[in-house]
Amino acid sequence: MPYISNEQLDSFHHLYRINLINSCSGYKSANLLGTKSTEGNENVAVFSSVTHIGSNPPVLGFFLRPTTVLRNTYENIKATGFYTISHIHESILEDAHHTSAKYDQDISEFDKTNLISEYKNGFQAPFVKDAPLQLAMEYVEEYDIKANNTILLIGKIVGLHINDEFLEEDGFINLSKAKVATINGLDGYAVPELKTRFGYQRPKNK
Amino acid sequence: MPYISNEQLDSFHHLYRINLINSCSGYKSANLLGTKSTEGNENVAVFSSVTHIGSNPPVLGFFLRPTTVLRNTYENIKATGFYTISHIHESILEDAHHTSAKYDQDISEFDKTNLISEYKNGFQAPFVKDAPLQLAMEYVEEYDIKANNTILLIGKIVGLHINDEFLEEDGFINLSKAKVATINGLDGYAVPELKTRFGYQRPKNK
Repeated sequence: MPYISNEQLDSFHHLYRINLINSCSGYKSANLLGTKSTEGNENVAVFSSVTHIGSNPPVLGFFLRPTTVLRNTYENIKATGFYTISHIHESILEDAHHTSAKYDQDISEFDKTNLISEYKNGFQAPFVKDAPLQLAMEYVEEYDIKANNTILLIGKIVGLHINDEFLEEDGFINLSKAKVATINGLDGYAVPELKTRFGYQRPKNK
Repeated sequence: MPYISNEQLDSFHHLYRINLINSCSGYKSANLLGTKSTEGNENVAVFSSVTHIGSNPPVLGFFLRPTTVLRNTYENIKATGFYTISHIHESILEDAHHTSAKYDQDISEFDKTNLISEYKNGFQAPFVKDAPLQLAMEYVEEYDIKANNTILLIGKIVGLHINDEFLEEDGFINLSKAKVATINGLDGYAVPELKTRFGYQRPKNK
């Protein structure tokens, strides 16, 4: 099996390397983060780095670069303390991915796509309407990652909007039934079919 | 759409809550982390939190709890500085998931499953043989996450073993062609089919 060394990576064209490294960690979550600025401007942006950190307290993290389009999301979260995470359903893949385009802060991606903002339960940040799973999030803390000057932002789940039909008896959310997408690399999208659940594992006896 | 508040989450049975919160972030990467202790004991363990942090330098992160089975992985990485990430192919789902069982440090999951360790290019940590994508990793740094007392461990890609047939012209690794799995929640596995790639997005003109 061919081997690519770190030195070879350095010699690759910039775009080749970002495609390669962005797809080498495996499948990623596919989420839209919704925020509203203190001036009332809405923002929605696709993220593929939302990661489960722990269940008690229920905390999720995501990574962002302070110098890209994603800054709107970051600034709004810092200013208001709140954001939403809406899962990307197979019917909105193209619009969801388009939110990665670099629009100015005063232009809302909700106006540039068919994505519709939705406000519920008095939560101040916008959800993406009709998303099969919508999380209301509150900022907890952040870490400056020295290795490459990015930020890990950690938030706590304030509440979840979820359709009963995707929620199984033991609390498992069937993402496949919900037709939620996963991301491969920078721009590849798949909508997986659940194959199996294996349950909790105990050591085998000899 | 039904709403579950943070207060309701607290009232749920422990297992119900961990199933729910573990599946609410979306699909996760499915990887086996391979390490070797300074005494020569091999360890391999399934992780679903490996996340792309940046391409230049090429760094990936993952989260772990210091107090679980995953400690073997952590201690070996801290002692040796190296580990491997092997992607979970559809043919090894059951064995891969079984590595989540809590074995003692002196018992290797390679002996308890049909997973086979493989050494290549003089790298000191074991890869999982026949995995479609194998990454050689070097420890960079770690962060103590105050929100829930977990650790974010960050490593640099030293090199990648990848089959040419999964690597596309622009550097994109086609995980679907490689029949790599993704994880839903704690124990659900899917092997996605790639639906589409959308490319780099630019703002739409009015």
